Amino acid sequence: MLRRIYLDNSATTPIAPEVVDAMLPYLKDKFGNASSIHFFGQEARAAVDKARHQTAVLINSRPAEIVFTSGGTESNNLAIRGLLESQAQKPDRGGGRYLDARGESKRHIITTAIEHPAVKSVCEDLEKLGGYEFTYLPAYENGVIRIEDLKDAVRDHTVLISVMMANDEIGTLQPVEEIGRLVKDLRSEGRKIWFHTDAVQAAGKTPVDVEAIGCDLLSISGHKIYAPKGVGALYVRRGVRLHAQNIGGRQERGVRGGTESVPNIVAFGKACELAAEELTESMSKLGELRDRFEQGVFEHIDNVTRNGDVEHRLPNISNLSFSRIEGEGLLINLDMQGVAVSTGSACSSGSLEPSPVIRALGRTDELARGAIRFSFGRFNCDDDVDRILEVLPSAVENLRKLARARV
Amino acid sequence: MLRRIYLDNSATTPIAPEVVDAMLPYLKDKFGNASSIHFFGQEARAAVDKARHQTAVLINSRPAEIVFTSGGTESNNLAIRGLLESQAQKPDRGGGRYLDARGESKRHIITTAIEHPAVKSVCEDLEKLGGYEFTYLPAYENGVIRIEDLKDAVRDHTVLISVMMANDEIGTLQPVEEIGRLVKDLRSEGRKIWFHTDAVQAAGKTPVDVEAIGCDLLSISGHKIYAPKGVGALYVRRGVRLHAQNIGGRQERGVRGGTESVPNIVAFGKACELAAEELTESMSKLGELRDRFEQGVFEHIDNVTRNGDVEHRLPNISNLSFSRIEGEGLLINLDMQGVAVSTGSACSSGSLEPSPVIRALGRTDELARGAIRFSFGRFNCDDDVDRILEVLPSAVENLRKLARARV
Repeated sequence: MLRRIYLDNSATTPIAPEVVDAMLPYLKDKFGNASSIHFFGQEARAAVDKARHQTAVLINSRPAEIVFTSGGTESNNLAIRGLLESQAQKPDRGGGRYLDARGESKRHIITTAIEHPAVKSVCEDLEKLGGYEFTYLPAYENGVIRIEDLKDAVRDHTVLISVMMANDEIGTLQPVEEIGRLVKDLRSEGRKIWFHTDAVQAAGKTPVDVEAIGCDLLSISGHKIYAPKGVGALYVRRGVRLHAQNIGGRQERGVRGGTESVPNIVAFGKACELAAEELTESMSKLGELRDRFEQGVFEHIDNVTRNGDVEHRLPNISNLSFSRIEGEGLLINLDMQGVAVSTGSACSSGSLEPSPVIRALGRTDELARGAIRFSFGRFNCDDDVDRILEVLPSAVENLRKLARARV
Repeated sequence: MLRRIYLDNSATTPIAPEVVDAMLPYLKDKFGNASSIHFFGQEARAAVDKARHQTAVLINSRPAEIVFTSGGTESNNLAIRGLLESQAQKPDRGGGRYLDARGESKRHIITTAIEHPAVKSVCEDLEKLGGYEFTYLPAYENGVIRIEDLKDAVRDHTVLISVMMANDEIGTLQPVEEIGRLVKDLRSEGRKIWFHTDAVQAAGKTPVDVEAIGCDLLSISGHKIYAPKGVGALYVRRGVRLHAQNIGGRQERGVRGGTESVPNIVAFGKACELAAEELTESMSKLGELRDRFEQGVFEHIDNVTRNGDVEHRLPNISNLSFSRIEGEGLLINLDMQGVAVSTGSACSSGSLEPSPVIRALGRTDELARGAIRFSFGRFNCDDDVDRILEVLPSAVENLRKLARARV
């Protein structure tokens, strides 16, 4: 039987056995609704409280600053739309105007050209809606925004800066601490401006400390850190008001209605605990696997371009463009040999366009189409690197031969 | 050790062992992201497709009409706000105007006085927002709306009727099929009007057939039918457009972004399959348990009032008001004896107000405060009824004695 190797941990991770064990009782006997007053409810409530504490520890927040959601996408939606709606001059749902020093004006949001679809699509939706202006900061060839660009972009009516902590396709880290300091300075001048960062890919792979970053809102997701799909969290700094998006009961202090997903929340808490415990070790292990992989690729395959900054990046993602190759063809070829990789964000799969992230780096369409993301995780080992280095060179060679034959 | 009896199945149900078994592989080896192209992704996609089919069978829809969500609250939010936003004359987020025959006017929504917080709070939020007018139909003493009231409430600019199929506190069934026929008639006159029903409590306890009902949108939730918390579905009739609320990737045909919660969706599908298979048997079993319970109560306790219509109701809910008693006191007393019941919706717990649903029936505040919901489920048996009938009369008597002593 084909031994399958999973190198798509940035799309989703396997669930850690410790996490499954932690959640199982809540799929069985401990089934209460955390809002119920009786014994079953109290048991569920205690479990949710514990998970809230575990989550807070991972990102150095207070437990009361954690709002559990159904995942990273919901966290990003709640952060951006929830903040903008809470700041509308009158309670509208986005069409409202923001009055700045010069009189009535649109509200302005600064983000980047390489955000995940869960931020990008929300921004595009708000743009269509009207009432908002957007600046999309360029990410340059290395995939890192420049703080001077951000400073230049700030206007009188800028209310929100949303910059991802680490990119999902190329793993590049953005200078979030510098952004945090800038926002702090602006605020000390009396400006009403908030800072959100999407840390979905960063959590568990690099230190995430909301105090060090100085953000107001920070999104994380369960299924990128060995918890199940369908759960995430939004850090909401104390004092920051959000207009609820999922409106219903009084769960999550009224910010997020709906019965708490207790088994998933318990799993998420456990995954956060593991992520915090294993961070140092895991960073060095993942970095070693990736470096050995990249070294092998550059040794055995020519015309390969690495996408994203070499220094400022997560330890687990390697994004490579193979010239004269369609990424999807290579993906399918590798899949037939039991190796799972991806061409970009799973959330944009189905799109026939070359990755907008890779194109934003100034790459040609050919190189954007030839980009493959290899993402390592907790369950990968040296053998997996050996295996991919065994199959990748010949796969690339064969596809290039085919491409030449076609021309 | 105290034997615990769970009679709060309307707040949440235990997960069926068959459901846990079905989802376990997706918490372990089958961990792929359903949007990934490779083997792991295909495996997850196939599982989601199967669940979509199982869900469709339960409510007699097409699989393509099912949108998976994070639960009943999200389904209700997506139905109401998604529809209204998609119908705005220009793409706004609610502030927009609907132009009727007489010129510019607000859009009008008809709902009931006894909806679940996940519908009621959304309506209240939209009302604050402006741009909408609401009619809340009275539910009368028996908890059933009258179709003549609904006919009278319809205006030129009515765009949405949202009436729950079964009430969560008293189990009363609304005349949804009559509403469906009315909407069909209005539409045949060229009116643009849609019908949403919250079937979260109805599913699995009474037949739910979207064709028979004639609704455009119907909400269901996993954790009321023996699947985990954190998953639900919205039926969206073919051709009905919704503006996405959770905006991100292209999942769920663009109507609901975010990585599919595969293990929960698989569990939900299995729970729907079980619900469909067991419906007839379960209805009669639950009805027998409830009837024997109510008979025992009326035999052994005086001054008890049944809330809600006796005929048009779910088989599993009994809502009783015990005069001269605080419901919460009785709940706590019963909990100490190992019996879990509730005073109303878990989603409104923490509120010190008497249940708005019971008050809407025209009950006095005293009776509204003395209301207790007993809700039976798949895992209850005759012994459970014996046990509650053993402890309830003395609990009521003791609390009434205390109340007299206090006066």
